[in-house]
Amino acid sequence: MLRILLINDTAKKVGRLKAALVEAGFEVIDESGLTIDLPARVEAVRPDVVLIDTESPGRDVMEQVVLVSRDQPRPIVMFTDEHDPKVMRQAIQAGVSAYIVEGIQVDRLQPILDVAMARFESDQALRAQLNARDQQLAERKRIELAKGLLMKMKNCNEEEAYTLMRRQAMSRQQKLIQVAEQIIAMHDMLGP
Amino acid sequence: MLRILLINDTAKKVGRLKAALVEAGFEVIDESGLTIDLPARVEAVRPDVVLIDTESPGRDVMEQVVLVSRDQPRPIVMFTDEHDPKVMRQAIQAGVSAYIVEGIQVDRLQPILDVAMARFESDQALRAQLNARDQQLAERKRIELAKGLLMKMKNCNEEEAYTLMRRQAMSRQQKLIQVAEQIIAMHDMLGP
Repeated sequence: MLRILLINDTAKKVGRLKAALVEAGFEVIDESGLTIDLPARVEAVRPDVVLIDTESPGRDVMEQVVLVSRDQPRPIVMFTDEHDPKVMRQAIQAGVSAYIVEGIQVDRLQPILDVAMARFESDQALRAQLNARDQQLAERKRIELAKGLLMKMKNCNEEEAYTLMRRQAMSRQQKLIQVAEQIIAMHDMLGP
Repeated sequence: MLRILLINDTAKKVGRLKAALVEAGFEVIDESGLTIDLPARVEAVRPDVVLIDTESPGRDVMEQVVLVSRDQPRPIVMFTDEHDPKVMRQAIQAGVSAYIVEGIQVDRLQPILDVAMARFESDQALRAQLNARDQQLAERKRIELAKGLLMKMKNCNEEEAYTLMRRQAMSRQQKLIQVAEQIIAMHDMLGP
């Protein structure tokens, strides 16, 4: 059973949507308004999906979506009346997995949530790849820096420095980046 | 006016969906079945959106989606009756921007297409970032390789080799990667 954190950012009471969700068999925890700290609520409630019902997502809603996406990433489904493509684009960039304009039909809820979850997974995988590349690049730079420092400290050439670092990594069962960080730290301590 | 390439992968004639699209004010070019070469059709028609109507997307449909996403990326909207979350996941990973289960309502077409286009843009931006990182990593490796070769050829140290490469790049108004490729090519020609 899916657990849904339902945020009502409309003037009306949340009744209709909540009833539809409960009828469709979901466990619903609901909140009124967005004066709450959404990432904290997500952390506390641990929902499978966050559902935001809003006439038009304002800046405060977008900010909450950005924060959740950064700190407590979850599939976020937004039901709204807002047609403006500019707003859609903002919402999607903020981290909305499904942006649904107008009309909540009970029998479409399950597929909408399933699609949102699949989309979320796929986005997360892409972002994880991007982070991994960033880390690889950053590590490569640190390793190059350490190699250069070692060449000076040992008065050796590039190959020799690299061989030394790899040997140290193997004999201490560390990663090359860890050895590099030790060399950099040591160099900082010994001074120029 | 949006130009839509409509692919009918259902047993029924495409009539109903096409009529709805035309009524909603879109320019529709339609195709029956997926025996066609979809990337080639996309290249020829240059649609803003590709819309696929399918009872359940089979392997052939998924393959066509993968090929379009690779060779002629466009927002792809899939209308289907297929509820299976596994299939949704496959479709989204293949490159579908919007996966809509059941029911085509004329008044929802425009927002669905707008959301799909916004989603497509956002995905493309993320993929472009990923490609840029891959290229950066690959270039860094080539530059390191060239630097090593130059150190041997000139019998100099790392800093000197790097300075030489940067100077060459500046004086010839080339990028460092171009200079690196020239060094590697030259080294290959001169032999070990």
